[in-house]
Amino acid sequence: MLKITTSSVNKKLTSNQTMRLFSSVPTQLQKHRVETDAFGEIEVPADKYWGAQTQRSFQNFKIGGARERMPEPVIRAFGVLKKSAAIVNESLGTLDPKVSKPIQQAADEVIQGKLNDHFPLVVFQTGSGTQSNMNANEVISNRAIEIVGGELGSKSIHPNNHCNQAQSSNDTFPSVMHIAAVTEITNSLLPQLTALRDALADKSEEFKSIVKIGRTHLQDATPLTLGQEFSGYVQQVTNGIDRVEQSLHHLKYLAQGGTAVGTGLNTKIGFAEKIAEQVSKECGITFKTAPNKFEALAAHDAVVECSGALNTLACSLFKIANDIRYLGSGPRCGYGELSLPENEPGSSIMPGKVNPTQNEAMTQVCVQVFGNNAAITFAGASGQFELNVFKPVMISNLLSSIRLLADASHSFRIHCVEGIRANEDKIAKLLHESLMLVTALNPKIGYDAASKVAKNAHKKGITLKESALELKVLTSEEFDQWVVPEHMIGPNK
Amino acid sequence: MLKITTSSVNKKLTSNQTMRLFSSVPTQLQKHRVETDAFGEIEVPADKYWGAQTQRSFQNFKIGGARERMPEPVIRAFGVLKKSAAIVNESLGTLDPKVSKPIQQAADEVIQGKLNDHFPLVVFQTGSGTQSNMNANEVISNRAIEIVGGELGSKSIHPNNHCNQAQSSNDTFPSVMHIAAVTEITNSLLPQLTALRDALADKSEEFKSIVKIGRTHLQDATPLTLGQEFSGYVQQVTNGIDRVEQSLHHLKYLAQGGTAVGTGLNTKIGFAEKIAEQVSKECGITFKTAPNKFEALAAHDAVVECSGALNTLACSLFKIANDIRYLGSGPRCGYGELSLPENEPGSSIMPGKVNPTQNEAMTQVCVQVFGNNAAITFAGASGQFELNVFKPVMISNLLSSIRLLADASHSFRIHCVEGIRANEDKIAKLLHESLMLVTALNPKIGYDAASKVAKNAHKKGITLKESALELKVLTSEEFDQWVVPEHMIGPNK
Amino acid sequence: MLKITTSSVNKKLTSNQTMRLFSSVPTQLQKHRVETDAFGEIEVPADKYWGAQTQRSFQNFKIGGARERMPEPVIRAFGVLKKSAAIVNESLGTLDPKVSKPIQQAADEVIQGKLNDHFPLVVFQTGSGTQSNMNANEVISNRAIEIVGGELGSKSIHPNNHCNQAQSSNDTFPSVMHIAAVTEITNSLLPQLTALRDALADKSEEFKSIVKIGRTHLQDATPLTLGQEFSGYVQQVTNGIDRVEQSLHHLKYLAQGGTAVGTGLNTKIGFAEKIAEQVSKECGITFKTAPNKFEALAAHDAVVECSGALNTLACSLFKIANDIRYLGSGPRCGYGELSLPENEPGSSIMPGKVNPTQNEAMTQVCVQVFGNNAAITFAGASGQFELNVFKPVMISNLLSSIRLLADASHSFRIHCVEGIRANEDKIAKLLHESLMLVTALNPKIGYDAASKVAKNAHKKGITLKESALELKVLTSEEFDQWVVPEHMIGPNK
Amino acid sequence: MLKITTSSVNKKLTSNQTMRLFSSVPTQLQKHRVETDAFGEIEVPADKYWGAQTQRSFQNFKIGGARERMPEPVIRAFGVLKKSAAIVNESLGTLDPKVSKPIQQAADEVIQGKLNDHFPLVVFQTGSGTQSNMNANEVISNRAIEIVGGELGSKSIHPNNHCNQAQSSNDTFPSVMHIAAVTEITNSLLPQLTALRDALADKSEEFKSIVKIGRTHLQDATPLTLGQEFSGYVQQVTNGIDRVEQSLHHLKYLAQGGTAVGTGLNTKIGFAEKIAEQVSKECGITFKTAPNKFEALAAHDAVVECSGALNTLACSLFKIANDIRYLGSGPRCGYGELSLPENEPGSSIMPGKVNPTQNEAMTQVCVQVFGNNAAITFAGASGQFELNVFKPVMISNLLSSIRLLADASHSFRIHCVEGIRANEDKIAKLLHESLMLVTALNPKIGYDAASKVAKNAHKKGITLKESALELKVLTSEEFDQWVVPEHMIGPNK
Repeated sequence: MLKITTSSVNKKLTSNQTMRLFSSVPTQLQKHRVETDAFGEIEVPADKYWGAQTQRSFQNFKIGGARERMPEPVIRAFGVLKKSAAIVNESLGTLDPKVSKPIQQAADEVIQGKLNDHFPLVVFQTGSGTQSNMNANEVISNRAIEIVGGELGSKSIHPNNHCNQAQSSNDTFPSVMHIAAVTEITNSLLPQLTALRDALADKSEEFKSIVKIGRTHLQDATPLTLGQEFSGYVQQVTNGIDRVEQSLHHLKYLAQGGTAVGTGLNTKIGFAEKIAEQVSKECGITFKTAPNKFEALAAHDAVVECSGALNTLACSLFKIANDIRYLGSGPRCGYGELSLPENEPGSSIMPGKVNPTQNEAMTQVCVQVFGNNAAITFAGASGQFELNVFKPVMISNLLSSIRLLADASHSFRIHCVEGIRANEDKIAKLLHESLMLVTALNPKIGYDAASKVAKNAHKKGITLKESALELKVLTSEEFDQWVVPEHMIGPNK
Repeated sequence: MLKITTSSVNKKLTSNQTMRLFSSVPTQLQKHRVETDAFGEIEVPADKYWGAQTQRSFQNFKIGGARERMPEPVIRAFGVLKKSAAIVNESLGTLDPKVSKPIQQAADEVIQGKLNDHFPLVVFQTGSGTQSNMNANEVISNRAIEIVGGELGSKSIHPNNHCNQAQSSNDTFPSVMHIAAVTEITNSLLPQLTALRDALADKSEEFKSIVKIGRTHLQDATPLTLGQEFSGYVQQVTNGIDRVEQSLHHLKYLAQGGTAVGTGLNTKIGFAEKIAEQVSKECGITFKTAPNKFEALAAHDAVVECSGALNTLACSLFKIANDIRYLGSGPRCGYGELSLPENEPGSSIMPGKVNPTQNEAMTQVCVQVFGNNAAITFAGASGQFELNVFKPVMISNLLSSIRLLADASHSFRIHCVEGIRANEDKIAKLLHESLMLVTALNPKIGYDAASKVAKNAHKKGITLKESALELKVLTSEEFDQWVVPEHMIGPNK
Repeated sequence: MLKITTSSVNKKLTSNQTMRLFSSVPTQLQKHRVETDAFGEIEVPADKYWGAQTQRSFQNFKIGGARERMPEPVIRAFGVLKKSAAIVNESLGTLDPKVSKPIQQAADEVIQGKLNDHFPLVVFQTGSGTQSNMNANEVISNRAIEIVGGELGSKSIHPNNHCNQAQSSNDTFPSVMHIAAVTEITNSLLPQLTALRDALADKSEEFKSIVKIGRTHLQDATPLTLGQEFSGYVQQVTNGIDRVEQSLHHLKYLAQGGTAVGTGLNTKIGFAEKIAEQVSKECGITFKTAPNKFEALAAHDAVVECSGALNTLACSLFKIANDIRYLGSGPRCGYGELSLPENEPGSSIMPGKVNPTQNEAMTQVCVQVFGNNAAITFAGASGQFELNVFKPVMISNLLSSIRLLADASHSFRIHCVEGIRANEDKIAKLLHESLMLVTALNPKIGYDAASKVAKNAHKKGITLKESALELKVLTSEEFDQWVVPEHMIGPNK
Repeated sequence: MLKITTSSVNKKLTSNQTMRLFSSVPTQLQKHRVETDAFGEIEVPADKYWGAQTQRSFQNFKIGGARERMPEPVIRAFGVLKKSAAIVNESLGTLDPKVSKPIQQAADEVIQGKLNDHFPLVVFQTGSGTQSNMNANEVISNRAIEIVGGELGSKSIHPNNHCNQAQSSNDTFPSVMHIAAVTEITNSLLPQLTALRDALADKSEEFKSIVKIGRTHLQDATPLTLGQEFSGYVQQVTNGIDRVEQSLHHLKYLAQGGTAVGTGLNTKIGFAEKIAEQVSKECGITFKTAPNKFEALAAHDAVVECSGALNTLACSLFKIANDIRYLGSGPRCGYGELSLPENEPGSSIMPGKVNPTQNEAMTQVCVQVFGNNAAITFAGASGQFELNVFKPVMISNLLSSIRLLADASHSFRIHCVEGIRANEDKIAKLLHESLMLVTALNPKIGYDAASKVAKNAHKKGITLKESALELKVLTSEEFDQWVVPEHMIGPNK
């Protein structure tokens, strides 16, 4: 018997083991240097730029492992913010250009993702994200020191005094949350949604002349075109784009300038406005300073609002992906009106089995978004006094929703939507078998006679035409002239 | 031992009992008349206007009892819609004024709530709300017949041909959902939120000069004014009002004119636009016809979107009500910075115990809204092909959220917010005990000396001033001049 | 234009109107008597037994209206508890039998539902349910006074000293929550689930010989019997019953005896155990005193646990109802393997349209249960120190879930499940068209040849047999002997 | 201006870029070998064991990136299952020992985590987890081939015929879900919860003689001991352990043996039971074969049930962590009854500021668990016919909840709970200031006089004793004898 080792911590909890459990790296083999903070000295890995506070958080919060690291867009946004702060502080005359320039250079490397390995902290840390703010300050400090040829850990370019000047974790982390969400939505989610919408619109146009049976309550109903059916999907995604864009409005307000509790203590008047301008320049997106910093630190309603928009979008995508996989069900024993692209073997047993795997991935993404929204809601309601201390878990869930929806929209489009084909024969066959076309006879032979035609057909399992002729209520020519599904797909003149 | 009777159905399930279980009225004693539909004859209570389809649904869906009746705003919206349809059909020449006028009169009575007792159906029925549409048709039909002196059940003014002319449940119910939600939000929720926001703004103004300790992570932090603290709440509710108003945009589109599957079969061109205009006149609110009827029947994303806005609002109100009850905790052993109005005895044991009951009611309302949002999300994602068949449960939850938030905003305002008083002595006492005022000394005596002052005070449990004098780092006069909380509540010039 | 009146509160908020808004009864016309509490005198309706504290709560919490009244099972449970307390206090010698007996008689009337009209309070009140406890005390007090010929409001049988003796709202309300939930589950939900399970089991037996196509990923797969398919549903409901029963374990512990904060101050030793015994006698169900009263007042994890079991059950029922409506989709253009009972006209346009309305009601109930569970989770996590003040909203949601699941199980069973018929012709047709039966040929002609047969059939749209004969890989007799779906529905010997 | 690069996909979507976007490794530089499946040839990295189907999934599902990789416990469980299948198949005589032994050896390496780098697939793939099953089959196949000196990709030890013998993704993935969840709970979560419970129990014992003010509705209430307060937490965690253990019951049933649709086609009779036995041996935990395989494939109610137990546990931990941080709030301006361990600098500005960061991490974990539960609920309800195709997202969320709760319990225990100290001075001060001790005077001087004492004290801001003496209702000695909080913490004899 071979015992399964668990992913996190195991059964026997001797103190030695407890200590050892979370060290993913055999610490005794690594080279170290000493860093310090108010709590004193602590060893950090020699090849990492981070300092004492990062190291303490790394050791104190062994929760979730690498999978739960602070998401990259947050790291990049810290780069943007720290660079912008250096520029603004320099312009206000409170930061020496000799300090500001290397900070800006180091921050640029953070933006470019070059220093990702130096951000080891997880989401489940202090609820203010303080240690991630210090992680950014420490990494930029040490890298800037290195740039100017100083000694790591010397604080000659200081993590607090310089990198964090006129800032507090309490305003940087909310700012970073907004910068990360807005840039990901703008640069990734919205383009992908637009591309998906366009692909669906192309299909709607392609299918505009294919008349098919409608289904309400899953039961046969009056006809519509396949293009009309897809136009509903197009409208849903179009509205989804609108909703997500609207939610950017409040996200584009930055808390920066509120410092510790929202008052702006230790900032200069004008700092808040200037940094919003500078961040806008860096990102190519217009941010503004939040009109009320107390709200901006203590609540994250803008994040909840955005998550609500993503939640609505996920409802739309769930419905679309679900419809398409049902319409593609079969090949012989399902609805079978659509053929979906074949991307991988569905089974080693039978040919023709195409599993709607992209639809399955999309619907799984949607339920994840629903779950993320529940977590964000709970966290968003739980602010206390001058601070909401659920910041990391909120932005982690929001970025998860954004990323998953963007990626899934891309994957679903290129591997599914663009390749959908209509099975016109099957569609036509179902349409013409449908008893509900009898509706067209109401004005010609009256509801009661039409009703007898339909009931007779249903009872005997024959077509409407066979039934009508059998009951001698009209001629074959009349039937063909009057029962025309193509005339049933819009209002009357 | 006396056996508890259960609210719904009980243990022994003999068929007789099963039949009897749900009859709230002893049916054998009631007078009846016979109504008919496609399934044949059925007895309905003689004193009710409803017809055969309503009766069948009443019998077939004994789920949840009176508590789960279709909400009144839906009934009223049906009145608006049926009246509007009669007017439009008359104007299009498809409905005789002799039929249209009594329909309009009967529909007006529905709008006025006079016929509420004739709408017995529950939410948990067919997912299209078809029977509630038929309930409206049948009640208006019979009441209109009565108005013109006809015989109930005669269908001389026909529920389908006249009351439901050019309509389908599949477009009326979505229209009614939107009309009900928009009118409740406009006439009830938004005014209450505005009044609450104004009351909070009045308090923010009233408290603008009271400097108090700030709290982050629940720990003592730098000061702010009580007015600033309340200004955060004002901003939250202001944003909440914006969010709810924005969500009306999509709700103001009506599905009417889509009929069975969205194509508009059996309507005249122009019907859709005209009925949106007529509904607008009736409600005094501008509605428009939905740009895509397929989306409007098969998805209810607009409802999910609106629920997302309410969910965000509930996060705001949860935080506000929670803060205020903590700030009012005590009277002796809590934060005690606020006194909340005393509305009822908190306990028969001790005087001075005021329970923050309005805050508790408000936070309970918020969690209900969170739950409603989860239900709406699930339902909203579950549309199939041309129809979402979770309509009644969606609108029931949305109207619940709207009503509860409106009522709770009203109750919380008049019974709590307007009567909040600041305990200035307690606030001042806490403020001046706080060690964090030491921050003001940093620029005067340096961080290290300031740090020693604070640590010494913390260790010995003395005040900052006592500590500073003991350590001889400044004079009494200097302390009084430099440590001024009132100078710590904004950015520096 | 006729203005819609809103359900709760309207736009103009003059103080007069505000006052008038919520009075469902024109108060100036009612007769009143004066009741008193620690806050002084207050008028109550002369024909109601309730007293001053109930009246204050009624006026102070105009939230949600009649739809949000405290659920009846809570009222009944208060009857049980107050009767039991009187019996135990009498037995402990602290309550005079002359006082105890009329209290018991009045409490019996509460149990029987005779005094429901005297419990007007809503869920959204103080989070401890204190006023509902006082409502019970006041009604029982006045009714008991009436029984002995005293004067209402005289407190000769005292609401606090006698009816509430050795009790606090803080232990009575949690006790009542558990009593209400356990009795509703035991007497209503579990019998209904059992009946539904049995009905599904009957169908599984009835359908045990009908071989049909299986569907995985919605795509055609290897066969199984319709009885096997239904056996999965039977297992799900059976497990659901187990889960709900297990959740009763913690619910059967009563908080009674903890009084204000869990210490049992003002109770006699033994009171807690005796009252659990007496409640058990009243209900015919064994309750025990909670092992830790601090947990029992400050947390309601048992309610969250039970809601989790109902949430799981709702997942099961959602899947079952969903499968059955898809299998019954059609009649011509869907899966069409099942016929569901026709309970009401589906449409005035076409015969044969049966809407799966019971399934729709069931799935709507399930999403409500999911929403209720989200609300309960949030509320359950939000206890503070010695009390969770979300008690009313928690029990309201739990009882909603219990009632809806019980009623929907009953309705779904009698109006749908019991009448399901298998469309054997359609089932057989689909089964034999399926390409996946080719699997049976693998051991006979090899995977490669079998694969060619299937691909050829798929490509040309012909049957497997036609394809096999065309490719000359076997004889007609061999095909009929080897391809036997009935041999594919279990493991090999 | 430096443009932020986004984490997933970017704005310009030329086809080249689209192709390149997701390749984390510059593919042109890697060495490759050719693997094949039913779709033909495909290149895979030369240094990886995976085959064609893994490669296709890797390319087709670029959703979420490394953060969303299939969790390690699933990979390890696949090792256990594939090893067990080889052993059972060998024992049944259907697998040559020369093939079985190297498969077992390769599977052992999977169990040991040595081959983690060869499992690149993400959660958001086909909803059956088919490609992860094939990933396991392909890696074990190639590694086994390598062990016996064969050529990678040669399929001499075949991924389907040998590694997947008598199995289908449809039964292996559900089995692996259960194995992974049960082992993680047993080996990680339950030991951590037990250790946390014990630490809380130690504190309850340590604090058993410290009498303190109770708080209900956040307002001062009757006293209890700090030990009693902690005993409530102990009870909550104890019940949580029970709940999680109970949820293992259904999780210990394995779907293995159901193959494609639950019938067990292509297995030998007895295979299902034998493999459950073998898995039990491997894990040291007793698993059984599921009594109904149709349920086991088409529903994952056992996962929803377990998530419900974790959700309840999270409610408990949320309350505990929240209480403790409020009790530790201060140091000067909060409740201040507890001192929490100082683990890292809370602020560079003021000494004495300890942020309750472990509590914040714990409560953030709890809201993540609430969100995960919402996702699992939605997914669990969404099975269709013979398969639930939300398997990967369900197990991913469940394992996330398990891991986070285990890790956070550990971190919270060692970094917070074990180091909590009671601030006895502050506790005593608050206790003796409390007006509610007046309750002890009721039996001595009567409720009315006691009430006057309390009201007078409240009004004048003096102590109870001062008030009582001022009102001359008792002597100083009587007060000291009668008002003894220590006598108020339990029932009376």
